[in-house]
Amino acid sequence: MHNKKIVLAFSGGLDTSFCVIYLKETLGYEVHSAVVNTGGFSEVELVEIEKKAYDLGVVSHVTIDKTEEYYNDSIKYLIFGNVLKNASYPLSVSAERVCQATAIANYAKEIEAEAIAHGSTGAGNDQVRFDMIFNILTPHISIITPIRDLKLSREEEIAFLQEHGVEINVEKAKYSINKGLWGTSVGGKETLHSLGYLPEEAWPTAVTKEGMESIEIEFKNGEPIALNGQKMKPTELIQELQELAQPFGIGRDIHIGDTIIGIKGRVGFEAAAPLLIIKAHHALEKHTLTKWQLSWKEQLASFYGNFLHEGQFHDPIMRDIEAFLNSSQQAVSGKVHVELHPHRFVILGIESEYDLMSSQFGSYGEMNNAWTGEDVKGFSKIFGNQVMIWHQVNQSKTEQSESN
Amino acid sequence: MHNKKIVLAFSGGLDTSFCVIYLKETLGYEVHSAVVNTGGFSEVELVEIEKKAYDLGVVSHVTIDKTEEYYNDSIKYLIFGNVLKNASYPLSVSAERVCQATAIANYAKEIEAEAIAHGSTGAGNDQVRFDMIFNILTPHISIITPIRDLKLSREEEIAFLQEHGVEINVEKAKYSINKGLWGTSVGGKETLHSLGYLPEEAWPTAVTKEGMESIEIEFKNGEPIALNGQKMKPTELIQELQELAQPFGIGRDIHIGDTIIGIKGRVGFEAAAPLLIIKAHHALEKHTLTKWQLSWKEQLASFYGNFLHEGQFHDPIMRDIEAFLNSSQQAVSGKVHVELHPHRFVILGIESEYDLMSSQFGSYGEMNNAWTGEDVKGFSKIFGNQVMIWHQVNQSKTEQSESN
Amino acid sequence: MHNKKIVLAFSGGLDTSFCVIYLKETLGYEVHSAVVNTGGFSEVELVEIEKKAYDLGVVSHVTIDKTEEYYNDSIKYLIFGNVLKNASYPLSVSAERVCQATAIANYAKEIEAEAIAHGSTGAGNDQVRFDMIFNILTPHISIITPIRDLKLSREEEIAFLQEHGVEINVEKAKYSINKGLWGTSVGGKETLHSLGYLPEEAWPTAVTKEGMESIEIEFKNGEPIALNGQKMKPTELIQELQELAQPFGIGRDIHIGDTIIGIKGRVGFEAAAPLLIIKAHHALEKHTLTKWQLSWKEQLASFYGNFLHEGQFHDPIMRDIEAFLNSSQQAVSGKVHVELHPHRFVILGIESEYDLMSSQFGSYGEMNNAWTGEDVKGFSKIFGNQVMIWHQVNQSKTEQSESN
Amino acid sequence: MHNKKIVLAFSGGLDTSFCVIYLKETLGYEVHSAVVNTGGFSEVELVEIEKKAYDLGVVSHVTIDKTEEYYNDSIKYLIFGNVLKNASYPLSVSAERVCQATAIANYAKEIEAEAIAHGSTGAGNDQVRFDMIFNILTPHISIITPIRDLKLSREEEIAFLQEHGVEINVEKAKYSINKGLWGTSVGGKETLHSLGYLPEEAWPTAVTKEGMESIEIEFKNGEPIALNGQKMKPTELIQELQELAQPFGIGRDIHIGDTIIGIKGRVGFEAAAPLLIIKAHHALEKHTLTKWQLSWKEQLASFYGNFLHEGQFHDPIMRDIEAFLNSSQQAVSGKVHVELHPHRFVILGIESEYDLMSSQFGSYGEMNNAWTGEDVKGFSKIFGNQVMIWHQVNQSKTEQSESN
Repeated sequence: MHNKKIVLAFSGGLDTSFCVIYLKETLGYEVHSAVVNTGGFSEVELVEIEKKAYDLGVVSHVTIDKTEEYYNDSIKYLIFGNVLKNASYPLSVSAERVCQATAIANYAKEIEAEAIAHGSTGAGNDQVRFDMIFNILTPHISIITPIRDLKLSREEEIAFLQEHGVEINVEKAKYSINKGLWGTSVGGKETLHSLGYLPEEAWPTAVTKEGMESIEIEFKNGEPIALNGQKMKPTELIQELQELAQPFGIGRDIHIGDTIIGIKGRVGFEAAAPLLIIKAHHALEKHTLTKWQLSWKEQLASFYGNFLHEGQFHDPIMRDIEAFLNSSQQAVSGKVHVELHPHRFVILGIESEYDLMSSQFGSYGEMNNAWTGEDVKGFSKIFGNQVMIWHQVNQSKTEQSESN
Repeated sequence: MHNKKIVLAFSGGLDTSFCVIYLKETLGYEVHSAVVNTGGFSEVELVEIEKKAYDLGVVSHVTIDKTEEYYNDSIKYLIFGNVLKNASYPLSVSAERVCQATAIANYAKEIEAEAIAHGSTGAGNDQVRFDMIFNILTPHISIITPIRDLKLSREEEIAFLQEHGVEINVEKAKYSINKGLWGTSVGGKETLHSLGYLPEEAWPTAVTKEGMESIEIEFKNGEPIALNGQKMKPTELIQELQELAQPFGIGRDIHIGDTIIGIKGRVGFEAAAPLLIIKAHHALEKHTLTKWQLSWKEQLASFYGNFLHEGQFHDPIMRDIEAFLNSSQQAVSGKVHVELHPHRFVILGIESEYDLMSSQFGSYGEMNNAWTGEDVKGFSKIFGNQVMIWHQVNQSKTEQSESN
Repeated sequence: MHNKKIVLAFSGGLDTSFCVIYLKETLGYEVHSAVVNTGGFSEVELVEIEKKAYDLGVVSHVTIDKTEEYYNDSIKYLIFGNVLKNASYPLSVSAERVCQATAIANYAKEIEAEAIAHGSTGAGNDQVRFDMIFNILTPHISIITPIRDLKLSREEEIAFLQEHGVEINVEKAKYSINKGLWGTSVGGKETLHSLGYLPEEAWPTAVTKEGMESIEIEFKNGEPIALNGQKMKPTELIQELQELAQPFGIGRDIHIGDTIIGIKGRVGFEAAAPLLIIKAHHALEKHTLTKWQLSWKEQLASFYGNFLHEGQFHDPIMRDIEAFLNSSQQAVSGKVHVELHPHRFVILGIESEYDLMSSQFGSYGEMNNAWTGEDVKGFSKIFGNQVMIWHQVNQSKTEQSESN
Repeated sequence: MHNKKIVLAFSGGLDTSFCVIYLKETLGYEVHSAVVNTGGFSEVELVEIEKKAYDLGVVSHVTIDKTEEYYNDSIKYLIFGNVLKNASYPLSVSAERVCQATAIANYAKEIEAEAIAHGSTGAGNDQVRFDMIFNILTPHISIITPIRDLKLSREEEIAFLQEHGVEINVEKAKYSINKGLWGTSVGGKETLHSLGYLPEEAWPTAVTKEGMESIEIEFKNGEPIALNGQKMKPTELIQELQELAQPFGIGRDIHIGDTIIGIKGRVGFEAAAPLLIIKAHHALEKHTLTKWQLSWKEQLASFYGNFLHEGQFHDPIMRDIEAFLNSSQQAVSGKVHVELHPHRFVILGIESEYDLMSSQFGSYGEMNNAWTGEDVKGFSKIFGNQVMIWHQVNQSKTEQSESN
């Protein structure tokens, strides 16, 4: 029997509780549990998780707070890129896992663990994100995945824990809920099939607000810095806006998309703050960026989002795209006015010193101060020149071949 | 004084009425007016336009119906591509203009006109679309644009008409409205500035429906072919769905984007049917297309939409992209269920024989029938292999340079 | 002991010879060997392979000729796309493997084999191409890979064969050579490291031609159809041109690129015909396609080549891109004149009825028949309009902030 | 008659000499001539140009040296991006014009000129680059283009000069040659048509070197910093390498591509140093960048090159792409060995501390240290999972529909 250090990514649920006992008793590890908070846990929850860990017999337990890093390393760029996977999903959970796996790998290196364990099953995305990031950052540390390897049922896990003197009282929740800074995912009966929407009771936040509420979000260089005129840290702004807007039922949807392992997966989410921030940010960009900035941002951000979703955060291409995105935000400063209504919102418009829609130069459909009709005539001639030539050349060919 | 044939794109409004008289009386042309219907005019309106034309003294007037061509040449591909410019605007007016300009050019060729006239001003996109398409398709026919060239005020136009015995009783509408098959645009006071939303009375269709209504849209190879179980032509389906859904206030928004002439332009639109069809179609695609089909479609369709918006329909690259889009729709068949509510809708899910989300192979987060945990372990190793090597190579460099 | 059908992809070399005996004697399979010719084997070689197979004791052996399919399914599109991976490598071997794996899978299905075996090691790309295509096309047939699984040395393989009464006289060649229709790869000592070029004797075809030779390649809709005025099938043209041009030493290079498994790999190749055809084809396209056709073709073809290299031929995105490429070749017809010299060639120019470089419309830097200086003035104004506005808006901001 | 300041972009040739007299005598301007050196002029040539200017009667003349800015603002990024337009042309002239136009605009602003003149004709790209950049940077300064506006023949220009007492002795050169830091363009009889290569005497640099010469180029963060072990400034390295390599006849070719004004243009060029640097740099990148870095760089750089060619340097999207490119060069450091031969060169390989082709992890086709055959088996299964599902789902559909 060995007695070596293992770091366990611990959440306090049935699976990772099983892991503690299994790693300790069956595999003989010295278990060091860690929970990484990226903004999804409350203080109370973190204390409970710590208590559970020590009750289960870990040698040490740490809470690693990475909320600000999570914002700075990922969410910021998801805002800059207006990233909504498949035009709807703000990547609520995927980006978080990457940040958590990175923190766990660094912690394992720090305490010189010889192994890392995570509680993922074999059916989801998280196993790939964890495995891969550990392989990348700590290739000499082995990875243990008891839940995936043993393929036990909940009943078998509970029985195993009881055998080892641990009474765990976990009823399987009807809906599996995953709360994070950038949105909360909700999976359950209806999301297992292609048709069917989540019932009202499945959503973590009930719709309690009625009527209309006006808000103003201010951005500086692409980052949200003030809500209704009050300056605050972006992470605070996200949380405050979420509390303000989620009771309207805003930002609820079901995402259906490609998992890393090739199957299609469907999951509900509520993400009022992410949706509002992204749509407000995008509105500001439509006024302040050039046509080709908007176009290339769209392409690069779409790849960035998909690649982050697949856990490929540590590929240096991600740093290169972030450099592009940082550069693009130079003029993305100003205020966006939004109306909140039950289940929806309306972007009313923007105010920005960098607004390119300026009546100084002309007004669409109304005035042309900065150019003449003659200019446009010339532009139209040259702008269509190649296609004119193409039609002359190809049409004569076509006519010729038809007459033969 | 010459007496030659000119084709005038005629709408019956003040500007093109002025053009008839000016082309005839001042420039001495034989005016042949034409109106191209792409689904935006009713029978009654078309008869009125014809009457106006003859009253003004045109030599001939034709109504060219291009509704089916418009759908087949443009709308179909906007659906295949889920095209929403800047993630919001279904290109309601831009695609239509291209179809109209093409029809006018072909008509001018057919009747051997020596010139074509259009009533665009110098401040908008339409002038470029018309000029360019005429240059491309009929480079030897000259283009006359009285409104752009003369830069007259409404009052001056009315006075000129009165001098020539034409009493025209046109009050400037508070909002300029442009109805088409693929949505109706609304411009006015609020859209001239960056901040401000259209008031309720500005929208052509009042919100009269309450409660919830369920609908089912069926697609075959990407095209909408049945509404609530009833088969119909796509053009009919669009019109019927529009009538059914617009009274919910669905699909209202303000588009802000880049005009062809370089300035930013803002315009309101209501487009319930386009929004519903595109979002339903996209939902079906998320279930039936592979990851890389979704990714490349997004890129190509974004370019396609922008290029069509700029009037570049006749560049052969558009045919190449259409070939791509056609090919991609092979498996996009099935039914999409949608709930309509005031001002919003919810995609409930889809049914398709081509659905790749099949529990036969595994269920996201639940089961893995078609692979093992070992398979994923190997996948994660290889999937992250290059980035692992990159970090080993670059990290040792970094550490080395830090210790120097 | 079972006695079930297995299909073995057989090449007659040491590894696949070992596989025959191992599968038969150790695993108890009924071995059906197959060799897929995609243009790399001569008649004589195919007869030898067949003899070897029966000598080793296979139950049946088939030669499957897929040369025309290989051209039609892959090479044609590599030409249409001007595909040179990393701007140099025509994908000589990768595309071939995909075609071979597909043929083997279909053969296994046809004879109702319960398993397929291939002789790949664990260090290369081919294992992924074979595994994956078998998984995709015949997911219920198991895959046996003795060489990869047993990790035997050459000596051990030879010893095993001798124990089973098979004398095999294979000296390890100094360079591993892989001949195909679309080029021949050469690996050896120098390609195992990042620095070092293959010596003259390593190249399969010696440089025996001197002086200059002019050739003319004719294309129709993108396909090479005549060489020096003589019409022939594209597969014949490739082979004839290869024989004519390879003795000049044309198309030799070392490719360094990303393998599917994440490491960098380096390999020499000689591919005179592929290089000549691709560069001639590209020259013709530069004269006959529009700017945006060239631009999008480049992007899509780069992805297409990389994805084919990774063995992902059967993803339907590949069919969609092929539809795009087919459409793009409508006007790519004409003759290209090329000069061959030792180790290099020069594209002299093209002749095509679809040539867009026509002095009818203007001559670059010399004449402007189809437009005026005024037109260009207007074009320049509008073409730079947005960036002018951007600089006015952003510069005033900059100046203001500097003066504070 | 007015007497206002005009800045003239002056080269000393017939056209700009005409401009001096015409602007002064006919239009009554106070002519301030300027020549911008971006590395294409020798000291002697610059002195001659200055003398000519004063002889013609300019009020002032300045030589603006922008060689280092040209490298830092453009060439550096063309290297980072391996930019060869249409896979052959290093943009020798286009990037230079942008730099020159920018310097002229800034000079005009500095001396508070009320107008700028350039000598472009109406048939080329340069008129757009000059017009547009002046419009962007100095929208309130008017642009005068006598040559384009008057459309005079050479004879008429000479006669006009003689009338004003200026004897100019310029024979039209058989080939129009444009020397720059990043290559020299050559236009003439053969480039006016689609078929025909430049004769030996047309090339500015004769082929005088025989045999073989080995060189070593060292890069640091993507920039060329040493030649054959000797450190020097990149601009010096380019010039030294050009002198060393051009006598081999390396980097000669004919570019055929899309002009800004829509027609196809053909032009010869010799650019030994640019070709060698780009190909050496690319080789180094293939060893040090990840697959997705290579892929995205290719796409972005292709756009960057095309957009720079079109004179759109001042769009902020260019700054964003430069930020991406800068980030991507972090590990592009090392030495590249190249062999020079008459008319061609061979990349022998590279040495770099950042080389990802490291036998520590595995050797392509030989060893797999960092993973097992089992890992690849799992990878292949998951990597092809979605396409396997697609084929199962779509094949059953196909079979079903066939049997109906």
